[in-house]
Amino acid sequence: MSDIVIIGAGMAPFGRFPEKPLTDLGVVAVRAALADAGIERARIDAAYVGTQWGGSMIGQRIMRQCGLPAIPVVNVENACSSGSTALHLAVMAVRTGVHETVLVAGLDKLSHTGGTLPRHSDDYEGSLGLSPPALYAMRAQRYLHDHKANIRDVALVCVKNRRHAVTNPHALFRSEITVDEVMASRPVADPFTLLHCCARSDGAASVIVTSRARAGAAGRDPIRVLASDLCSGRYMPGFRDMTSPEITVRGARQAYEAAGVGPKDIDFAEVHDAFSIAEVLYYEALGFCARGEGLALLKSGATTLGGAIPVNVSGGLMAKGHPPGATGVAQIVEAVEQLRGRAGARQVEGARIGLTHCTGGGVSGLDHGACTIHILAR
Amino acid sequence: MSDIVIIGAGMAPFGRFPEKPLTDLGVVAVRAALADAGIERARIDAAYVGTQWGGSMIGQRIMRQCGLPAIPVVNVENACSSGSTALHLAVMAVRTGVHETVLVAGLDKLSHTGGTLPRHSDDYEGSLGLSPPALYAMRAQRYLHDHKANIRDVALVCVKNRRHAVTNPHALFRSEITVDEVMASRPVADPFTLLHCCARSDGAASVIVTSRARAGAAGRDPIRVLASDLCSGRYMPGFRDMTSPEITVRGARQAYEAAGVGPKDIDFAEVHDAFSIAEVLYYEALGFCARGEGLALLKSGATTLGGAIPVNVSGGLMAKGHPPGATGVAQIVEAVEQLRGRAGARQVEGARIGLTHCTGGGVSGLDHGACTIHILAR
Repeated sequence: MSDIVIIGAGMAPFGRFPEKPLTDLGVVAVRAALADAGIERARIDAAYVGTQWGGSMIGQRIMRQCGLPAIPVVNVENACSSGSTALHLAVMAVRTGVHETVLVAGLDKLSHTGGTLPRHSDDYEGSLGLSPPALYAMRAQRYLHDHKANIRDVALVCVKNRRHAVTNPHALFRSEITVDEVMASRPVADPFTLLHCCARSDGAASVIVTSRARAGAAGRDPIRVLASDLCSGRYMPGFRDMTSPEITVRGARQAYEAAGVGPKDIDFAEVHDAFSIAEVLYYEALGFCARGEGLALLKSGATTLGGAIPVNVSGGLMAKGHPPGATGVAQIVEAVEQLRGRAGARQVEGARIGLTHCTGGGVSGLDHGACTIHILAR
Repeated sequence: MSDIVIIGAGMAPFGRFPEKPLTDLGVVAVRAALADAGIERARIDAAYVGTQWGGSMIGQRIMRQCGLPAIPVVNVENACSSGSTALHLAVMAVRTGVHETVLVAGLDKLSHTGGTLPRHSDDYEGSLGLSPPALYAMRAQRYLHDHKANIRDVALVCVKNRRHAVTNPHALFRSEITVDEVMASRPVADPFTLLHCCARSDGAASVIVTSRARAGAAGRDPIRVLASDLCSGRYMPGFRDMTSPEITVRGARQAYEAAGVGPKDIDFAEVHDAFSIAEVLYYEALGFCARGEGLALLKSGATTLGGAIPVNVSGGLMAKGHPPGATGVAQIVEAVEQLRGRAGARQVEGARIGLTHCTGGGVSGLDHGACTIHILAR
């Protein structure tokens, strides 16, 4: 799949803008991606737009404001993987020759919701209290029990990602925090305090995908897409392994196979750290360390900027923010900046290959509905 | 594109089921399509699910209940074209060899909403009153003015489609009405009374797409997909032609070209009759008659079952109902039944080629955000 490239990437800084229409954020991101690619709007053949809560026809609203008429526009919803699913479809469309150049956008706005979002009438687990914080808290409890570990060690994820975000102009939180501060924040779902959880935010991101052959004519610093994997959960009833996210393990295996690389080849990763424990579980699921070695990897500093496999140098969901539809595309924007060597103070030295991982939409307790993994290379 | 076929089609009858979870309707439709195809669930490689109001991850919920795990699932939103956009993506995936066999579902539930749906904060036209009935009423006024016609003639669309639906077990309204009854119903937006408008309803539909080569091994009576076109509006500011829907004219031209057929080759059509005048405008836009000849075509009986080009023999949105995400897929279910010669009392004799048309999501007054046209053949 190395004939597919990303030739433009841009985003609206993540934050809280309750007074702004969501389309405004999308327009900023799309214009930034177009400007970055340096191509004419007429080159865009289609648009795939990911949003979870953006409402009907958000993509068409943005394309209209950006002067991109008449092209096919598809709005995509896959919970936290909405934006990365839109990218997955764009890669498919270019790879198969259906389109030459495709625009991808991801966006969402949660600052005005007060945290309450609609729930399906048949979401029995959610109705009984198995909200995402509760679900991940159970996973954390199990992990701490199995490995005789301390939640203060898990809090190092929050400290690391907040530190990473300090120099990221796109991040919601740009100040450092300590383990003591994390643990002293208000309780949410034991063992999580508030700062173990990512924060509601608003934002948008956009990238432009084309073929390597087409990129020759335009576009700066094309970044290759080595793998684009999408899968859903197995939805198994009964016993499930709470600390090994099967969907990520399977998605990673498929993505590595498609890319022809392994976890040792990954120079940095943007990982779905919706809760502190999540990043630790995903270290293991993505093969960055053996099972049960996640906390040791974290404590070693290997996943901190400057380490062997820096994770979430953008700040991740934890510090950059998490507007669900935007997150997957924003991870790609970060990866593109890193692979171009233009990430400034948070640059991963010598980055050649990066991995991005989004997973979400639990529809059956511990299972996830959609996991997307992309592997990019310069 | 004639190497793409539909090998299974099924639906949950359209109606009003405020007490049922939407997933239940989706499960009925998916199981019906699988049973119709007579294939193992393990043959399904991916699922594309269209919904406008079904909420986050509706596709994954349905796949879980239908025992279809682990495959890529993508939820698609394109307003009234949501379901047909899901089909468009499935056709793309099979045509390009990304997947061999793909399940498509479309569904929505509006009976519990009371008619009020969320609106974008920047939907200035909607806020000022330009709701869909008002928009189409303006078009009707213009059409009646230009052609010195009478709204009672336009009401013949409603009478015809209600008559068609009488023998359709999937239809919401299965009783005939008269022009007098249409005109005597309560006013909505002049010149429309209530019965000039399609009705809120609930429903789901599903089809299974594969390649002709694969269909040989399984599937009954494969129906060929000759064209699958998706486009969005031009969003032109200023003057626009209110009685010629540009997006449908353009989409039809593209679809006919892809299929290698013309309007004269179409034996029947399912057309987006959200309001009575819409069907008349689309006769012209789809080339079934010349511009300005739509009412004459209607009055001639040509678009009634038994005529030269029967339109909406299923009852259309007007009588079968209009759960937006379901409509585009349900049109395909009807077309498949017709082309197989199994439509019973509403069979179009000798049907060889059918066209389905969905358009919706006005985001700029008179323009539409997504138009999908499919041409199928036996």
